Amino acid sequence: MESTEVVDVIIIGAGYAGLTAARELHRAGKSVLVLEARDRVGGRVWTKQLDDGQYVDLGGAWAGPTQDRIYALAKEYGVETFKTYDEGRSTQFFRGRVKRYKGLIPPLSILSLLSLDRAIKRINKLSKGINLEAPWDSPNAYLYDSMTLETWMEQTIGLDTARQFFKVAAEAIWAADPADISLLHALFYAKSGGDLEMLMNVKNGAQEERFVGGAQSMANHMARELGDRIRLDSPVRHIRQQPDSVTVSGEGFSVEAGRVVVAIPPVLQEQIQFTPPLPAARQMLIQSIPMGAVWKCYAIYDRPFWRTANGNTPALNGLAATTDGYVTVTFDTSPKDGSRGILMGFVLGNQARAFSELTDNDRKEAALHAFATFFGEAARTPQQYLDHSFLNEPYSKGCYAGLFGPGVWTEHGPALREPVGRIHWAGTETAPVWNGYIEGAIRSGERVAGEII
Amino acid sequence: MESTEVVDVIIIGAGYAGLTAARELHRAGKSVLVLEARDRVGGRVWTKQLDDGQYVDLGGAWAGPTQDRIYALAKEYGVETFKTYDEGRSTQFFRGRVKRYKGLIPPLSILSLLSLDRAIKRINKLSKGINLEAPWDSPNAYLYDSMTLETWMEQTIGLDTARQFFKVAAEAIWAADPADISLLHALFYAKSGGDLEMLMNVKNGAQEERFVGGAQSMANHMARELGDRIRLDSPVRHIRQQPDSVTVSGEGFSVEAGRVVVAIPPVLQEQIQFTPPLPAARQMLIQSIPMGAVWKCYAIYDRPFWRTANGNTPALNGLAATTDGYVTVTFDTSPKDGSRGILMGFVLGNQARAFSELTDNDRKEAALHAFATFFGEAARTPQQYLDHSFLNEPYSKGCYAGLFGPGVWTEHGPALREPVGRIHWAGTETAPVWNGYIEGAIRSGERVAGEII
Repeated sequence: MESTEVVDVIIIGAGYAGLTAARELHRAGKSVLVLEARDRVGGRVWTKQLDDGQYVDLGGAWAGPTQDRIYALAKEYGVETFKTYDEGRSTQFFRGRVKRYKGLIPPLSILSLLSLDRAIKRINKLSKGINLEAPWDSPNAYLYDSMTLETWMEQTIGLDTARQFFKVAAEAIWAADPADISLLHALFYAKSGGDLEMLMNVKNGAQEERFVGGAQSMANHMARELGDRIRLDSPVRHIRQQPDSVTVSGEGFSVEAGRVVVAIPPVLQEQIQFTPPLPAARQMLIQSIPMGAVWKCYAIYDRPFWRTANGNTPALNGLAATTDGYVTVTFDTSPKDGSRGILMGFVLGNQARAFSELTDNDRKEAALHAFATFFGEAARTPQQYLDHSFLNEPYSKGCYAGLFGPGVWTEHGPALREPVGRIHWAGTETAPVWNGYIEGAIRSGERVAGEII
Repeated sequence: MESTEVVDVIIIGAGYAGLTAARELHRAGKSVLVLEARDRVGGRVWTKQLDDGQYVDLGGAWAGPTQDRIYALAKEYGVETFKTYDEGRSTQFFRGRVKRYKGLIPPLSILSLLSLDRAIKRINKLSKGINLEAPWDSPNAYLYDSMTLETWMEQTIGLDTARQFFKVAAEAIWAADPADISLLHALFYAKSGGDLEMLMNVKNGAQEERFVGGAQSMANHMARELGDRIRLDSPVRHIRQQPDSVTVSGEGFSVEAGRVVVAIPPVLQEQIQFTPPLPAARQMLIQSIPMGAVWKCYAIYDRPFWRTANGNTPALNGLAATTDGYVTVTFDTSPKDGSRGILMGFVLGNQARAFSELTDNDRKEAALHAFATFFGEAARTPQQYLDHSFLNEPYSKGCYAGLFGPGVWTEHGPALREPVGRIHWAGTETAPVWNGYIEGAIRSGERVAGEII
């Protein structure tokens, strides 16, 4: 079974980070081999083709302004983008009542709105001081890193309603509870993507556009370009560094290289045995970054019925937010031509864990009940329903990305990108810009290729 | 290479939890097999024999009041205990000055003392309300779990000096920075061992006694009793549950059983592939519990010279505490008969990470410099120096135990001991009483054996 090959660089993980690194290194004349544990490329980006020619993105899906690298990839491979639908009113469900509203400002009391607005502005202002390359060197880094985002909310947002909606937004941004991340990480992350509005918005935000054919399209193109330099179904078990080379092995394979790029989330690096052991700082780092938790729930209808006014209900954009239940945020994810109506609901953080305990049918009922509450009874009977969580995938263990709790950035941050001998680190968790997004993954792949070339 | 054996119960991990479970199950007539990744038993308890017949405990070492199970084991196997030496003055090094003091009260300003005393009393009082079996069900659980211990210190301890010494104590208790754990975990942990004084003290505390021959002695006795039912050098890679049995496999072995006991720390469970995948709640739990970080530094002298008054220096008990440098807490760990003098210094939390980056020689110099500062120049020239950290051991990844940061108990706590099909969970991290200690490990082994019998 054993075969020893030799290449210049082995890349572990065929997500956007690994594929980008491999492509850049290959184009620079290096011999590369990408080892992927799954039977597909794309990692946490996975476009599922449906029977009727439609598709849904079970993982990463959108792109928006300043995400230059993903747009460059799409352009290079001729993948078209289109605007996320956002015409008509948004929907809020709060204290048992549905309200419709225009623009970005939810229908809350003026005091709650002011409180919410102040909190968002304050995060944005504080985040300006963060050093993206070295968050641990930012002013007040230890103070901000010693408290949770939840503590900051308690201290800063006086009104309960404002705090509840801030929490919904935070859950949607991080797929986690505000107690799970440090204030420093929240500030870093906001600046990493621009500001909180950029992270939250459709128009002029991170949810502005989608990809015709799905967000996995560019990954598939890169995979075609790399051809048999990608090996699927090859989980790596061991990385052994020798003085002059490094050996990467798994069940039935062993490959030698000059350099290795590890392009998988920190928590998955626990599955690899490193010889010699990783330095203490890196050990502590990768133990300390659990993944977020999220389910995407898709309902597919013959048409996007919510886009048309109906009786008392005005034309709706498919965006909804609520503080109750499993599905707390929804988007219109219909295809570009509107030939079908597709609603996508997020189940986030703690709700995601509880949702995981339901049967297939109970999950479906709960999601469709939420859709019906937001968009009317027609939403209860889609042509098709499906949902997905990366929590149960052994080669992701969660989504969207790794969470930095209190202490992690200031104690272990310097180890995040620091190569260990012949091993280099990529993945969206290592990105100073658009950390946690596909864009961050691509940038990390480019950065690590640069380190090696 | 493959051989398929069948036993009633497979136990993964031959630390105190796994050995206790195996012993109880064996005595109850079950056929057992213990699979241990290392080439020794004891896990995070490891007694190192020195050339001259002395020994040092590189991991867990002490026992104290209310730790009934470890004392019962010691008694059963005829392992003698003896009091940790604590006669004479304690030593404090603060702001460049060495001070000696008697009893438990460090020589701080009266205001700092009051502040420190109030903080300790307040933790003890709050901790009384904690539900040890279900911390997430305690009053104010979400509030206490949404903040770090550091945030609580900032809010509660007004005086900087008091806060600094509280931090030294917290680092010594958890081998972590107070930003790394939630207030709820601190309260749980304090009550789990009795109260903060119990955790901190020598006399009437968790450091009251040691074992003649070292803390691994009872583990070795249990191993002898189990004989060839323990298999060393057998890291488990895969646990596969079938309808009627469960298969545990690794390189070159595959064993079938009715039940499996996983008795290794949560973070090491990431190295095992579970088929079917673990439930979401358990996935999220084990991703979220990094290990503490600590070095133990041992200096061995021909005699415990500090115990005798010398010039201006009174007789010392070998206990020292400081807010500066790598070694922040020391103990007298000389053998029972005082035939040698042995000092042990802890390097904890963030200091442990930094200490790991030093060369062997720089670590030795730094530790001996601290000992000389506390106990005089004679401490600089021991007969022997050695130090150890479990951070770099792939089958521990840290010590003393797993750290519960904000959100972990309230979000994922219910998954901690909940069996998953045929898999049961042991280890000190699962213990309601003496969590994080050898005692907790033993109790978890007894509890899990009870679940199965």
